[in-house]
Amino acid sequence: MKVVTFGEVMLRLQPERYLRFMQEPRFEATFGGGEANVAVSVANYGTDAEFVTKLPVNDIADACISKLKSFNVNTDNIVRGGNRLGLYFIEKGASLRPTKIIYDRKGSSIAEAKTSEFDWKKIFSGADWFHISGITPALSNSCLDISVEAVKVAKKMGLTVSCDLNYRSSLWNEKDYQRAIQKMLPYVDVCIGSIDELETACGIKGIPVDELANKVIKMYGCKYVSTILVEYCYSHDNHWQGVLYTEDYVYYSKKYDIRMIDRIGAGDSYSAGLVYSLVNNYEPQQAVEFATAAGALKHTIEGDMNMVSKEEVLALINK
Amino acid sequence: MKVVTFGEVMLRLQPERYLRFMQEPRFEATFGGGEANVAVSVANYGTDAEFVTKLPVNDIADACISKLKSFNVNTDNIVRGGNRLGLYFIEKGASLRPTKIIYDRKGSSIAEAKTSEFDWKKIFSGADWFHISGITPALSNSCLDISVEAVKVAKKMGLTVSCDLNYRSSLWNEKDYQRAIQKMLPYVDVCIGSIDELETACGIKGIPVDELANKVIKMYGCKYVSTILVEYCYSHDNHWQGVLYTEDYVYYSKKYDIRMIDRIGAGDSYSAGLVYSLVNNYEPQQAVEFATAAGALKHTIEGDMNMVSKEEVLALINK
Amino acid sequence: MKVVTFGEVMLRLQPERYLRFMQEPRFEATFGGGEANVAVSVANYGTDAEFVTKLPVNDIADACISKLKSFNVNTDNIVRGGNRLGLYFIEKGASLRPTKIIYDRKGSSIAEAKTSEFDWKKIFSGADWFHISGITPALSNSCLDISVEAVKVAKKMGLTVSCDLNYRSSLWNEKDYQRAIQKMLPYVDVCIGSIDELETACGIKGIPVDELANKVIKMYGCKYVSTILVEYCYSHDNHWQGVLYTEDYVYYSKKYDIRMIDRIGAGDSYSAGLVYSLVNNYEPQQAVEFATAAGALKHTIEGDMNMVSKEEVLALINK
Amino acid sequence: MKVVTFGEVMLRLQPERYLRFMQEPRFEATFGGGEANVAVSVANYGTDAEFVTKLPVNDIADACISKLKSFNVNTDNIVRGGNRLGLYFIEKGASLRPTKIIYDRKGSSIAEAKTSEFDWKKIFSGADWFHISGITPALSNSCLDISVEAVKVAKKMGLTVSCDLNYRSSLWNEKDYQRAIQKMLPYVDVCIGSIDELETACGIKGIPVDELANKVIKMYGCKYVSTILVEYCYSHDNHWQGVLYTEDYVYYSKKYDIRMIDRIGAGDSYSAGLVYSLVNNYEPQQAVEFATAAGALKHTIEGDMNMVSKEEVLALINK
Amino acid sequence: MKVVTFGEVMLRLQPERYLRFMQEPRFEATFGGGEANVAVSVANYGTDAEFVTKLPVNDIADACISKLKSFNVNTDNIVRGGNRLGLYFIEKGASLRPTKIIYDRKGSSIAEAKTSEFDWKKIFSGADWFHISGITPALSNSCLDISVEAVKVAKKMGLTVSCDLNYRSSLWNEKDYQRAIQKMLPYVDVCIGSIDELETACGIKGIPVDELANKVIKMYGCKYVSTILVEYCYSHDNHWQGVLYTEDYVYYSKKYDIRMIDRIGAGDSYSAGLVYSLVNNYEPQQAVEFATAAGALKHTIEGDMNMVSKEEVLALINK
Amino acid sequence: MKVVTFGEVMLRLQPERYLRFMQEPRFEATFGGGEANVAVSVANYGTDAEFVTKLPVNDIADACISKLKSFNVNTDNIVRGGNRLGLYFIEKGASLRPTKIIYDRKGSSIAEAKTSEFDWKKIFSGADWFHISGITPALSNSCLDISVEAVKVAKKMGLTVSCDLNYRSSLWNEKDYQRAIQKMLPYVDVCIGSIDELETACGIKGIPVDELANKVIKMYGCKYVSTILVEYCYSHDNHWQGVLYTEDYVYYSKKYDIRMIDRIGAGDSYSAGLVYSLVNNYEPQQAVEFATAAGALKHTIEGDMNMVSKEEVLALINK
Repeated sequence: MKVVTFGEVMLRLQPERYLRFMQEPRFEATFGGGEANVAVSVANYGTDAEFVTKLPVNDIADACISKLKSFNVNTDNIVRGGNRLGLYFIEKGASLRPTKIIYDRKGSSIAEAKTSEFDWKKIFSGADWFHISGITPALSNSCLDISVEAVKVAKKMGLTVSCDLNYRSSLWNEKDYQRAIQKMLPYVDVCIGSIDELETACGIKGIPVDELANKVIKMYGCKYVSTILVEYCYSHDNHWQGVLYTEDYVYYSKKYDIRMIDRIGAGDSYSAGLVYSLVNNYEPQQAVEFATAAGALKHTIEGDMNMVSKEEVLALINK
Repeated sequence: MKVVTFGEVMLRLQPERYLRFMQEPRFEATFGGGEANVAVSVANYGTDAEFVTKLPVNDIADACISKLKSFNVNTDNIVRGGNRLGLYFIEKGASLRPTKIIYDRKGSSIAEAKTSEFDWKKIFSGADWFHISGITPALSNSCLDISVEAVKVAKKMGLTVSCDLNYRSSLWNEKDYQRAIQKMLPYVDVCIGSIDELETACGIKGIPVDELANKVIKMYGCKYVSTILVEYCYSHDNHWQGVLYTEDYVYYSKKYDIRMIDRIGAGDSYSAGLVYSLVNNYEPQQAVEFATAAGALKHTIEGDMNMVSKEEVLALINK
Repeated sequence: MKVVTFGEVMLRLQPERYLRFMQEPRFEATFGGGEANVAVSVANYGTDAEFVTKLPVNDIADACISKLKSFNVNTDNIVRGGNRLGLYFIEKGASLRPTKIIYDRKGSSIAEAKTSEFDWKKIFSGADWFHISGITPALSNSCLDISVEAVKVAKKMGLTVSCDLNYRSSLWNEKDYQRAIQKMLPYVDVCIGSIDELETACGIKGIPVDELANKVIKMYGCKYVSTILVEYCYSHDNHWQGVLYTEDYVYYSKKYDIRMIDRIGAGDSYSAGLVYSLVNNYEPQQAVEFATAAGALKHTIEGDMNMVSKEEVLALINK
Repeated sequence: MKVVTFGEVMLRLQPERYLRFMQEPRFEATFGGGEANVAVSVANYGTDAEFVTKLPVNDIADACISKLKSFNVNTDNIVRGGNRLGLYFIEKGASLRPTKIIYDRKGSSIAEAKTSEFDWKKIFSGADWFHISGITPALSNSCLDISVEAVKVAKKMGLTVSCDLNYRSSLWNEKDYQRAIQKMLPYVDVCIGSIDELETACGIKGIPVDELANKVIKMYGCKYVSTILVEYCYSHDNHWQGVLYTEDYVYYSKKYDIRMIDRIGAGDSYSAGLVYSLVNNYEPQQAVEFATAAGALKHTIEGDMNMVSKEEVLALINK
Repeated sequence: MKVVTFGEVMLRLQPERYLRFMQEPRFEATFGGGEANVAVSVANYGTDAEFVTKLPVNDIADACISKLKSFNVNTDNIVRGGNRLGLYFIEKGASLRPTKIIYDRKGSSIAEAKTSEFDWKKIFSGADWFHISGITPALSNSCLDISVEAVKVAKKMGLTVSCDLNYRSSLWNEKDYQRAIQKMLPYVDVCIGSIDELETACGIKGIPVDELANKVIKMYGCKYVSTILVEYCYSHDNHWQGVLYTEDYVYYSKKYDIRMIDRIGAGDSYSAGLVYSLVNNYEPQQAVEFATAAGALKHTIEGDMNMVSKEEVLALINK
Repeated sequence: MKVVTFGEVMLRLQPERYLRFMQEPRFEATFGGGEANVAVSVANYGTDAEFVTKLPVNDIADACISKLKSFNVNTDNIVRGGNRLGLYFIEKGASLRPTKIIYDRKGSSIAEAKTSEFDWKKIFSGADWFHISGITPALSNSCLDISVEAVKVAKKMGLTVSCDLNYRSSLWNEKDYQRAIQKMLPYVDVCIGSIDELETACGIKGIPVDELANKVIKMYGCKYVSTILVEYCYSHDNHWQGVLYTEDYVYYSKKYDIRMIDRIGAGDSYSAGLVYSLVNNYEPQQAVEFATAAGALKHTIEGDMNMVSKEEVLALINK
């Protein structure tokens, strides 16, 4: 089985511990981005994973590829060129003080990539699953075009397509988002999102989440819709439970109480858990349990990427 | 509007994280001190602030001034000379283990400063508010004289005078404290302190806090008395609520549950929040909300100084 | 009064903070091991303590001895020679993610030490108490022989003998453990262990803990049996209460709720607290209070060794 | 006396010590840029200095301003807005391995600033000297326009104008550089550059440096032309001597042998030394000695900015 | 073209900077070992490289494999199992103080591996070159057997075989070394070693190096013999020149003066440079230049592994 | 053999690497002081050593004693009490930039100690050698009294007395120094100092060093006078040679070229080398070789204290 993901990966710059920006002249420097995080998780669990993007020709981008390789992620179809690697600054919140993120991703190589640079037929050859998020089409008009083409080709070639609806208000407004995401949804088999994102994506507000999920399944022919029920206690604690909807049934996972080390990428880990378990034919209940436990564990790990094994996820489920 | 504060600023030496003293051969080295912390907070919120003290002529003291300048605090009236910069060692407590502080401030330049070195008329020219704490008069007999002179001149020149009653048993005993603080209180408009400090300052024990506050208002002609109701759960959690007394009314703030990163300077942040909001004519309820939220946020920040903006304080209030 | 302990001390290698193994190319490097930890605690409280082991001739082992000396532990009878210092890697768990330990202690100098290398009569001359754990006899057949000889000689020479039953499944199976520990128990006066360990040691399962403790007292002629009642809340919180059984009576300590910094060595600190208080003739209730508070404080300190003073333990008890 | 400088300041990201990019997941994060570095040096020596630029509205840019303030640099005329703070990655060379720099400054707020955003008449009011480098006009067409306007207004208002010819091949080609710099040179009084830069700027190659300097003085009416004679020994040692040309005379400084800690910003420190000494009416020989010693000392200091006092520069000269 | 290497890779533990062992409680933790270092270099230059060894099943060994993957080294034939990962402690020398190394590699998985665990026919299928050092046969009798079998099979299958003669007195004596290496030399095409090692390997002492190299070529049918002429100036400087002998001619490289950052692995980098250039059909002069420059650059990089590109090596040659 | 030393030990606070004061908010925190450094070195070489001083009752002073114990230095006669531990800030110079030291030792416990607190007869019982420096009598009048008493008692009890003439202009002037040191010199057997210090101590300037040494020997009845011939090349290199004068003969050591890591304490290491070798009856030539090599090695070690073994010193001599 092989999973392909496509999107932006960024340099992540973060003050140490709970320091505010520049309280010390030092940043932790790692890499992250929704679809890259998913590829890493899937590879960690033992399924072939490939990440596709465009990166500039410089040592920082080389280091990014080297890091992906260290996680066993295939990087053969990463296009090289363009002006820059996107980056983001993050200051971890603590207790009453919220986490702060400053994006500096404008003009990145992937945002300025062209449709012609990605040969999806070649990329998808031998693949079984394609995963993308709602961030990729937001990067630029050409990224929207590439994203739509990718899901179309994937669907046509028989891959299962999953999409994390991720809406980023820093990149576009709700209207543009809706218009774009609706171009992609007809090709999506597994749709993951918060209640707000599901509402915005399909333009329906105010109905119960079960109905909403069912609407999405019917409107776009999805096989699965999934959401995470989260309760935050400021920046330190989190209650977290996954829900997986099929046309006929709703599957709820165990609920976890989490003391957070790093919340960034938890949603990606959830998506990756779903992708991994479904591509490996887990039953829906098993799948939502795996995804939720995987996402819960991510909260305990520094950085965007979820460095846990399949055995560790299963151990948490069976605890 | 311009706020002047006067007191001692020290070099703060602290083992990293929750390590015990010298568990690693390394100290985090920052600066802090009640009145300096207040000036930094006030400047952070956008009001002119000046800090007055005496510092020796060496590179460590230069670094201290440079740090104050980086926070936009005016340092023009800092006197240079004397033998040394006071310092303190702090080991952060964790859970059942309490925080430990070792002061090494004897013989500091400010403790040995003379009355003639501070020209308060010049310093207060153009200023609207003067803030001092109960620590400054404790440093030495001359510091007591300077403090009393400062509040007198401030009052005479029409500034509002605030005093944080801070009693430090390592510097003097309750009797000396009482005698000293009572020389200053007649010139104080805003009096901030714990219940114990209010009792010690005015020499009345065992009456309800509301009555006590009212006594202080009447005895010394204060406009406001303020206290913080704190419940500690060992070294990790804190419940925190501010109270502001006027002659006629008591204003309670929201109550915050805090998981602590660094508790030092939280009281100073509360004072600064009160000074800032009152000098800018906030209503009493707004003022106590601002002070309490500011102090609550301080618990989430490493070091003595509260690196939060006015917007962040308001965001917490309105959450 | 003088306490002697005997066992293995290892180099402990740990990623910083809550990082997973090799997430950064750096390990914190300290030393630790059950009986060494006990010696350090006892010395910290002000009673003479000596640690006996075998260490190779190299700079890392020298550093280990230097560290023991810095805690005032006598190292005069440490044998030098053999191939290597045992070591262990530890990755601290966080919230839902459990702590992970990788031992690399095979072939260590102490594991390959011979009976003839330790002259227990000489070592115990002038000593009042001997402490050992269930780990030492597990290291090798010769270590089992040395351990049995040590408790025999100690008993004969009138020392009080304490044993922490510590069962390590990575070193042997329950059956071998039982056979070994039963060779030692007849010489043990103070027997410390979890309920599971007590059951395995004496081969009786399923009876109430009070009965079980009484059985151990009677079967082996122990004066005291002690256990800790622990409830874990994942990797962050811990409820902790000590119990001390004599033939006639059961003593319960206060119960502590702990937010953990580092749990490793907490059991050793409990044992050390018991050893220290009993060798100094504390009453049983005082002893179990001291041991429990000491162990509780250990949770707040990085590394295996409990860096707290007698005064700090008493302050927690009296809080 | 007051010196104004104008240009780009960037976030500088650097692996620790001599590590290659991303050999550890951590960057040292400081700020730097030619004209900002000059302003910091001038302020360090005790002369009023102001730095003008455009910076985005975010916490990283706030930290940059805070850092400038800590050095006593006036930041009142920094324009806020635009998309991003430029940044550069630097890997320090060692011995045979050269230093490596990756710029990521495209689309920065200053590069996209407009002429109308800077009111030079207001900015220069009360100022005596204006300093700019050849990097600023390279950032964009509008930056070229702003730069030309700035030197014109400065000249007209009677300020002395200095320009460090800095040619950056990563930003433009020699031809564009020449065309741009020749628009500025007629307004420049003090022209600083390497021999190559002097040749490229005035379009004359292959004549002796003394003649070349004289040509520049005559062609553009400069009062001073200055260059540094450098011999590199790989990445560790440097021989360094300044030369100052007037129409009639050549002044050579002492020659220094330097073991390098950080070479970045040494040229800026030389320029700043020249600006400081000339604005304070040093004799030419004194000026070139001061500039050369200041630049030499910069090699011993981490980061772009030269943290040395006037006294330290003079001590080196008089050694 | 594909290069296979076989040997031991260890965890390398090193105090930071020039600190002595345990001067701080922290080790830098990286991986290294002669043949692993060669594989990394070859992969860095763009030729397929595979490293073969045996590693235990634990997270530290996983991290080692992950690191090799990050450098694009194929790890498919690494056998998993056995007791432990070998490790070594290194304290970097400084000036007059020599570097100190403590090996702790006894009982490692590779040392205890069996002949039957490596299917060399399968491993070498599709490969062009096999590289091994004199350290691998020293690890154990079975490692000697595996090494001899590997060079025999490689030779038979038409691979070019290179051997770095590395003699380690901590692992065996000269006599055992000689006996072992002479079993391998008849299958070696490219023999690399110091003069001492060449003498010990072939049992001839005291003749000029040129004659010695010729002897080795004739005795064992090598195509190339290579040595490095090194002059040390204590622990900081190094003069370094490579020599490549063929039957008919001697090729000398340029000579480099190096200020050292980390000397460990420089010899491996030289070997890798030779392997890379010869497998890619460089002329002998080009090959020795490439190897020497590669080795020289290694001195400037922390850790065992040479993180330089082909372009950087060529740039140094052409400087 | 047993060596006693007496003086002040301080907390040493230093920015990391070559950073200027407060360039990062962090200090390395170690301990050092002339006579403490001597005791550590002597203990490292295997001879009993005791350090006598007065230290306050706090955790930082406890850590200091713990550090001394870790080096096997006897601390039994350290008096506890007084106000504070002296400290000093040090910024390491680099190349042209000199090292900078800021003392903050006024009012330290030892400076305010009284004569009656040290029972020299008891302290010296069983000792063979007493070492002191010219810094101790400079700390205060009572320290001068204690120092004079100590050398008198030592002499009377038959100990050999050595004195490092160390003149500190920050503590007193040459005249006071001379008056004080001349009270001590009649009891000194081994007198160590720079040429300047020898001149100042005995009040004779401008005669050749050999004559000067001879004068000192005759005037004060010393057995040995020793000096180090140092040539500095800025802050990085050092040429270093010891000279030992007896009444009849001059012994010169080998001369070392040193690249410096940390120069502080090199003189103390030289003194310690002399003390160690003479107390163990080395021949004069051996003694000066040992002292010089020991001092040379100190330049390669971070911190005040010389962490080298006797074997390492001998290895350098025999290199």
